[in-house]
Amino acid sequence: MSGPQQPQFELTPVAMVQSPLADLDSAPNQGDEGAPPAWIVFERGVIGALDGIRPGDEVILLTWLDRVSRDVLRVHPRGDESRPRQGVFSTRSPARPNPIGLHRVKVDALDGSRMRVLGLEAIDGTPVLDVKPVLSADIGER
Amino acid sequence: MSGPQQPQFELTPVAMVQSPLADLDSAPNQGDEGAPPAWIVFERGVIGALDGIRPGDEVILLTWLDRVSRDVLRVHPRGDESRPRQGVFSTRSPARPNPIGLHRVKVDALDGSRMRVLGLEAIDGTPVLDVKPVLSADIGER
Repeated sequence: MSGPQQPQFELTPVAMVQSPLADLDSAPNQGDEGAPPAWIVFERGVIGALDGIRPGDEVILLTWLDRVSRDVLRVHPRGDESRPRQGVFSTRSPARPNPIGLHRVKVDALDGSRMRVLGLEAIDGTPVLDVKPVLSADIGER
Repeated sequence: MSGPQQPQFELTPVAMVQSPLADLDSAPNQGDEGAPPAWIVFERGVIGALDGIRPGDEVILLTWLDRVSRDVLRVHPRGDESRPRQGVFSTRSPARPNPIGLHRVKVDALDGSRMRVLGLEAIDGTPVLDVKPVLSADIGER
């Protein structure tokens, strides 16, 4: 995929997921399918970036799905082998060239360096890269 | 922000934005404010990952906003100094610890290794990290 002239960019996790979900088999495929509440535990150095987030807010978490292959270009949607393979850019498969997970969640509580969220399907120990507010453009309102 | 024990993750761009928007001053702050059509030009090695994307689809592009500071934790929302500073995680400021941009766009055309999109506010040359379909959970339907 990458040639010698390709730039590479470095990510540093800003937080980690603390969740009762211990493995991928017990994780629902999407957050709307019954994930338990999870804590997002932030690095001390980034806590100021949380300023302005309040319980009840809907936010987007970006995570790093580091347990998957980055060389897979086509998958059976949702792992269902009865469905034909599709390109990973047309699915939400965690296996993709840059395995960044996107999760819309609801902020349930804030407690110092921790934020409790509802509706997150990521497993315990998943690195978190970013938190963003949901915009009307994200939800199709123009 | 990072200590010696912090893992780092490497991103490789999968595509590049080709757009008449040449600089940040001419770029609208959000995609719903009148961005011109843009081409996303993919690396040869990832074209198979586009399989299943069709004109008319709404997709999410993740980009790398590499011209900004990663050390800023608080900003004036939308650069408006009359508004008090907020934590970057409660804004869509490009300046943030991991400067990943999130853009919901509409696929207008596909042409080999290129995809034309509507509603993208990113400037010419912006690296693209990922393409994802929009899910009902993203737009608040549960």
